[in-house]
Amino acid sequence: MLLSILTGTLLVSTVCALWPVPIQVSEGSTTVVLAQGFAIEYNAPNGTAPTGCVDSSQVVWGAIKRTYGLLNDGFVPNMLYTFEEDFEPTAEEMAAAPQLCKLVITQTLIFFKGETDGHSEFDVSLTPKAGAVNESYVLSIPSDSDTATISAVSFLGVIYALQSFNQLFYTHTNGQIYTSYAPVYIVDEPKFKHRGLNMDLSRHFYPKESVLRVIDTMSWQKFNRFHMHITDSQSWPLEVPSIPELAIKGAYGQGLWYTAADLEEMLEYAAARGIQAYIEIDMPGHTNSIAYSHPELIAASNIQPDWPTYANQPPSGQLKLNDSDVKQFMSSIIADVLPRTGGASNYFHTGGDEVNVNVYNLDPGIQSNVSTVIQPYLQDFVLYTIPLSVSLIRRGIHEQIFAANRTPIVWEEMLLVWNVTLNKDVLVQVWQSAANAQLTTSQGYQTIVGSYDYWYLDCGRGQWLDFGPAVFQQFYPFLDYCNPLKNWRLIYSYDPLFNLTSEQAALVVGGEIHLWSEQTDEHRIESMLWPRAAAAGLYHTLPCRY
Amino acid sequence: MLLSILTGTLLVSTVCALWPVPIQVSEGSTTVVLAQGFAIEYNAPNGTAPTGCVDSSQVVWGAIKRTYGLLNDGFVPNMLYTFEEDFEPTAEEMAAAPQLCKLVITQTLIFFKGETDGHSEFDVSLTPKAGAVNESYVLSIPSDSDTATISAVSFLGVIYALQSFNQLFYTHTNGQIYTSYAPVYIVDEPKFKHRGLNMDLSRHFYPKESVLRVIDTMSWQKFNRFHMHITDSQSWPLEVPSIPELAIKGAYGQGLWYTAADLEEMLEYAAARGIQAYIEIDMPGHTNSIAYSHPELIAASNIQPDWPTYANQPPSGQLKLNDSDVKQFMSSIIADVLPRTGGASNYFHTGGDEVNVNVYNLDPGIQSNVSTVIQPYLQDFVLYTIPLSVSLIRRGIHEQIFAANRTPIVWEEMLLVWNVTLNKDVLVQVWQSAANAQLTTSQGYQTIVGSYDYWYLDCGRGQWLDFGPAVFQQFYPFLDYCNPLKNWRLIYSYDPLFNLTSEQAALVVGGEIHLWSEQTDEHRIESMLWPRAAAAGLYHTLPCRY
Repeated sequence: MLLSILTGTLLVSTVCALWPVPIQVSEGSTTVVLAQGFAIEYNAPNGTAPTGCVDSSQVVWGAIKRTYGLLNDGFVPNMLYTFEEDFEPTAEEMAAAPQLCKLVITQTLIFFKGETDGHSEFDVSLTPKAGAVNESYVLSIPSDSDTATISAVSFLGVIYALQSFNQLFYTHTNGQIYTSYAPVYIVDEPKFKHRGLNMDLSRHFYPKESVLRVIDTMSWQKFNRFHMHITDSQSWPLEVPSIPELAIKGAYGQGLWYTAADLEEMLEYAAARGIQAYIEIDMPGHTNSIAYSHPELIAASNIQPDWPTYANQPPSGQLKLNDSDVKQFMSSIIADVLPRTGGASNYFHTGGDEVNVNVYNLDPGIQSNVSTVIQPYLQDFVLYTIPLSVSLIRRGIHEQIFAANRTPIVWEEMLLVWNVTLNKDVLVQVWQSAANAQLTTSQGYQTIVGSYDYWYLDCGRGQWLDFGPAVFQQFYPFLDYCNPLKNWRLIYSYDPLFNLTSEQAALVVGGEIHLWSEQTDEHRIESMLWPRAAAAGLYHTLPCRY
Repeated sequence: MLLSILTGTLLVSTVCALWPVPIQVSEGSTTVVLAQGFAIEYNAPNGTAPTGCVDSSQVVWGAIKRTYGLLNDGFVPNMLYTFEEDFEPTAEEMAAAPQLCKLVITQTLIFFKGETDGHSEFDVSLTPKAGAVNESYVLSIPSDSDTATISAVSFLGVIYALQSFNQLFYTHTNGQIYTSYAPVYIVDEPKFKHRGLNMDLSRHFYPKESVLRVIDTMSWQKFNRFHMHITDSQSWPLEVPSIPELAIKGAYGQGLWYTAADLEEMLEYAAARGIQAYIEIDMPGHTNSIAYSHPELIAASNIQPDWPTYANQPPSGQLKLNDSDVKQFMSSIIADVLPRTGGASNYFHTGGDEVNVNVYNLDPGIQSNVSTVIQPYLQDFVLYTIPLSVSLIRRGIHEQIFAANRTPIVWEEMLLVWNVTLNKDVLVQVWQSAANAQLTTSQGYQTIVGSYDYWYLDCGRGQWLDFGPAVFQQFYPFLDYCNPLKNWRLIYSYDPLFNLTSEQAALVVGGEIHLWSEQTDEHRIESMLWPRAAAAGLYHTLPCRY
């Protein structure tokens, strides 16, 4: 735990301007103002990528444009100070302040997609896998020169540096833009390579604009992964063009889904902000919304009133597991979606949580709730362990994903409950307990942490399930399973590497903070996410002035 | 507790359209549509009040105008139904549905201010005291006639009936406005006469527009009291025209206060929606923001770092109690504010919670933290027990309020901790425990319930106080004092009359649900208040279909 460093009072100071807190900062107390005509220069040409090529320098040029906007957003930081504190430089200090005319960005590694230079195409894509790209940067804002500098290896380092630069500047009530912390010298890089937010887009529908706003705010916090839990038993808000009935019948209402164009826009919007977005199609559980268009594929669909036997929340319903039509259908979905997410996503999350055994009593191809009976079917569904050469047609979902050069991610149960044999490149996402990271990493799997005891933003708002008249009173005072609400200090206190050996720790690629949407919709999303999600300690190691 | 009736599953049905649930409803299953040219008639003339007179019929005409808007708001109630339920009438049913041409309102008691008719002016004001006006109504929507009817004694009954009428109508996807529940017959009145929301407007500043939005939503839930906790130690966001420095120096920033015109607008906006708004100027505690302009009046202002000795949260600071300047100053504030709130407010809340004894060690006029030493000064401050005729100039705050024909409200500590002698007309507001209503009513005081164990909407979001490096870790996992978050079922389960004798129960005028603003601002206000505040069971007695 980080408790040992959570030992002080939050005092406002220089680097409290910055969140997440950089690894190394030195600071002064000189006020510097942005000159009229302040300009940002960058050592990559603007708009010269060959047609059809992805050009990471365009991401930086976009970030530069947004930085001009953010510097001019009029932010007066009175909320960062106590009531009577005089935080603004005086008129005399502003008049005498050195002027900053330029911010010069030097990026040492600039690639166009398709260039080789010893790197694979993935290394230089806009959405590199964890660790493939150096994310460090150096930012200097002098007090004795008119030029600030950023140097970074990659475009990601540059855009993080621009976020830090922007955060150091405020608007004075006289209208000028200034920092009082010069000279500032920051040497920084994120602690973890996978710094994600998982948003449940199924249990309530969020208009695309809500999602884009979330991505914006994530980028200000230097998050770099956006996990879109885009389907679940409650609704199927994802257009699959080759199977249009999935959304038409499975979404909450007409048009309450993400079109193919919406999905592309969201992924690219994220990529343009240094965030790799990837979707999860949870399976074989959490799939009852498929039954609205294809009831023949789902076992135990919406059993009432005895849903608790078949699911942790209604409606129950899981993919049949010994049914070639099911495999073919899910394979068709994946085949439809994968090519359309390839430009921005190197990952594809196949879910695998909360598979209910009783459902398979009602699955005609299985008719058993015995795990050892079910397991081989689940194994084949995920990864067919007979070599592909024997039966290409019978390959599992993961083989299909690997074949598309994508890395699957699964929830922990696939490994810890079902003992499914997984390719060693699969990322395993822990959610049930912080301690489970020991179990996944000790089996050698790269692990994403963020369990409900610390990092579920939806917890603590009360029991939302109705269990029927006979037992209802037992639930007084109606707390939910993961009460209490996770406050920001608790979120911050969680150390992803707690109690891990160094070998185990090396397999923790990072984590994700989660927002499940049973009780959240577009109107509540901002207040449910922020500022708490920003406290997930994936980037920084030390809070401000503790 | 209402637990005995919280015994079922929420099923969608007719009267689930209505919240709060009326006392008596009968319903049918006939679909009725609003005719083109549907009109609302009302048996009071529109706009004929003598100049300068308050005319409650104008409130109704305003409510009628808003009802047209709400009926046409396009609400399709898909969220009230399970996924595949066909809740809309078919095209054939809509085509065959009887048309409703008119809603005829008959109000039996219509007064202009100043009329006598055996009623005092207060009885017929727009903001009657608890119980002064009959709030009942009868609403009938037939299936065999083109005319729906509302009958009510007072304008308040009429506007509640209009809310219920509106809630019964939805927009069909064909664009028509319909109800499927005809014939509907409702006989209704609120259970409690004081159905309030208390909003802390000091710890964060809320723009007036945020407050007006809150009032709108309150009116839809048939709340009738809006308690504006408008000053506190953190800021003084209230313009007092005769003492302008209070807001200029005491607000969070330039213009972050309610002007005299703002206050008037908020009070009148509420009155026009059947809600009596009233302000609280908390005293003698929670007054440190006065020190920003008048430090000489405040003892123990912002003691650091040892604030916990002097306050439950920083900044510490309370009015000096043995100081005629203090009395004169507070009297001036009251004298300035009272006339400007008289049109809409019959109540004035003088606070009185959390008076810290140690502060008076530092008060030069007292120099003691012994309650028995402090109490007489507190008594004189609130209510001077020597007859007014002896010394008008020395009258207490409450005498001043009564002299202006207003009723004071105090927090429970004035009675239960300090044993201050109060006029028997004073309303006492309980907040520390549901059980304390026994103590206040057993002393014969009209009581407002709503304690933090059930009705504090701000609870459970985590400890927001910093206690310094030495003790910080003791607070892990950083829960606040009133954790957990109060979920809607818990809020609903609270019975204001629990464990009271019938004599005690008769003194409970109602209650208030509270939002303190340490961690809430204009961006979070809606999601902090709703829908939970609507579950405060002050109007209704039975939840929907339990």
